[in-house]
Amino acid sequence: DPSLKVFTLNSNRKLAEEIANHIGTPLGKCSVSTFSDGEVQINIEESVRGCDVYVVQSTSLPVNQHLMELLIMIDALKRASSKSINIVMPYYGYARQDRKSRSREPITAKLVADLLETAGANRVITLDLHAPQIQGFFDMPIDHLQGVPILSDYFEAKGLDDVVVVSPDHGGVTRARRMADYLKAPIGIIDKRRPRPNVAEVMNIVGNIEGKTAILIDDIIDTAGTITLAADALIENGAKEVYACCTHPVLSGPALERIDNSQIKELVVTNSIPISNEQMSDKIKSLSVAPLIGEAIIRVHELKSVSILFD
Amino acid sequence: DPSLKVFTLNSNRKLAEEIANHIGTPLGKCSVSTFSDGEVQINIEESVRGCDVYVVQSTSLPVNQHLMELLIMIDALKRASSKSINIVMPYYGYARQDRKSRSREPITAKLVADLLETAGANRVITLDLHAPQIQGFFDMPIDHLQGVPILSDYFEAKGLDDVVVVSPDHGGVTRARRMADYLKAPIGIIDKRRPRPNVAEVMNIVGNIEGKTAILIDDIIDTAGTITLAADALIENGAKEVYACCTHPVLSGPALERIDNSQIKELVVTNSIPISNEQMSDKIKSLSVAPLIGEAIIRVHELKSVSILFD
Ligand SMILES: Nc1ncnc2c1ncn2[C@@H]1O[C@H](COP(=O)(O)O)[C@@H](O)[C@H]1O
Ligand SMILES: Nc1ncnc2c1ncn2[C@@H]1O[C@H](COP(=O)(O)O)[C@@H](O)[C@H]1O
Repeated sequence: DPSLKVFTLNSNRKLAEEIANHIGTPLGKCSVSTFSDGEVQINIEESVRGCDVYVVQSTSLPVNQHLMELLIMIDALKRASSKSINIVMPYYGYARQDRKSRSREPITAKLVADLLETAGANRVITLDLHAPQIQGFFDMPIDHLQGVPILSDYFEAKGLDDVVVVSPDHGGVTRARRMADYLKAPIGIIDKRRPRPNVAEVMNIVGNIEGKTAILIDDIIDTAGTITLAADALIENGAKEVYACCTHPVLSGPALERIDNSQIKELVVTNSIPISNEQMSDKIKSLSVAPLIGEAIIRVHELKSVSILFD
Repeated sequence: DPSLKVFTLNSNRKLAEEIANHIGTPLGKCSVSTFSDGEVQINIEESVRGCDVYVVQSTSLPVNQHLMELLIMIDALKRASSKSINIVMPYYGYARQDRKSRSREPITAKLVADLLETAGANRVITLDLHAPQIQGFFDMPIDHLQGVPILSDYFEAKGLDDVVVVSPDHGGVTRARRMADYLKAPIGIIDKRRPRPNVAEVMNIVGNIEGKTAILIDDIIDTAGTITLAADALIENGAKEVYACCTHPVLSGPALERIDNSQIKELVVTNSIPISNEQMSDKIKSLSVAPLIGEAIIRVHELKSVSILFD
């Protein structure tokens, strides 16, 4: 279908190529660079007049650069008479700033939604938002895909025995419940208190993990404090072995060192955020969300329901 | 006046302090940092309820970081019930992307105006926009200050003889004319063609420069290609000596090396963009715009005309 075009910016070129392959269309020609003073320079090198354009970009590190690339691309596409501008954002940055937890805090997750709308986006396809409420920050249609089936399929294929799916905090219990349903396993919860951001404190464990293979699941692993301390707590309390998984491997600061030195046997993630060669370790397995997103784009373009892909 | 508060973000802390001093108010308490994953974190540490808030921030390098700091600060101020949010942007980044000069180009200068509006800004105070038409990109009031008087006063105080004010290109003739009026001097124009961005080509000179002291004036000096080649052309064509000045010292890439090796005797700039210690050279003189901006804030706050400051 020549009216469907997929473009990529700088955050996820490889994933975008896989998505375009899945759809069976070449990636749109476009150069994204910076001027000497650091300002983003975008040249769209083919016509988009009357086209439904899908732009693949995660707002991962460097988040402000990636967000501006996206906003400027939307502006350029709008002025170039594209018919619709559909943002494919496997990782939605700033999602953790989704409420005022103290006085005078910004709600940057809402700001980002407004900025995308102002620039001229018509639709967002995203994956595992930190809070599903962020969907309500948008006045345009948003398709919210889920990574749990992809992660679950991987663990199922491993044929692990006597599994318990563990949420590293209270906020993630619904996600753990979903994975447990897929794997027909029970759940556990780590009872945790976080004294300040990026620092995690593990407390006690709710649920029976004795002698079991525990799979920790979270949406985002950032500095990996929470997840590695959770793994310690599980082993201390009698778990046989601990796997961990998440959709979005932010992996900032001490994350890689912590994971390498942790009791986690394997960390399974998706390529919503690419892992560089220097970041890659034997312990990390990255699964592709390209088939899921590619299928979602095809279904959106054909005006078909998308939720069937992960229900 | 306790209802007037001045805050700064990370681009221009020193200038903001000078502005606050000029006004006679302490800078508002606020921390601006980043989380481990590069996301901007802002904490406003004093009440702004019912206040007219002025936020000082240039969108200079790193431009996307500085712009996001500004947008997030506006969001936080809006949610914290400030009465008005006034953006003081000595340097307006992305101003050169102010029109489609080729097909499918973005107009990022307009996008930035829209983003500021969406975030919740109520007014902009800025200085020497690359094109005065950018004022029309805003639906809110914009006060457009001019740096020519500050630069002119400096050259006047030097007591230079037989001066000619030279525009390095056709686009800057109005600015050169304004400075020439201040200095009661004639003008010249460099007849230039630029083969591609960040690369400059000097042609011939319009006007009499023979034996004169030439002062080159531009709004922005970025990679300094234009201005240093202009200086060469002026000396070759008989100018006695060449000074250069601009409002906004972007000075990216090879700029400093080019200026140091050039025939420019002295480069006079303003602190709309701060010059780091490593960038500072004997040839560069930076003048403060704090009195101008401070006075503008006082007059805006007292509902008085601002143009009197530079007319
Ligand atoms: N990029 C970030 N890195 C670490 N903490 C963040 C980040 N963005 C927001 N936060 C904080 O994380 C908390 C929300 O996390 P959560 O409780 O997991 O939803 C809020 O208190 C935020 O201030
Ligand atoms: N940050 C930048 N650095 C260099 N060139 C730019 C930048 N932003 C825009 N441009 C280009 O500069 C031209 C406008 O400059 P001017 O002719 O001086 O108004 C346009 O062709 C833009 O594509």
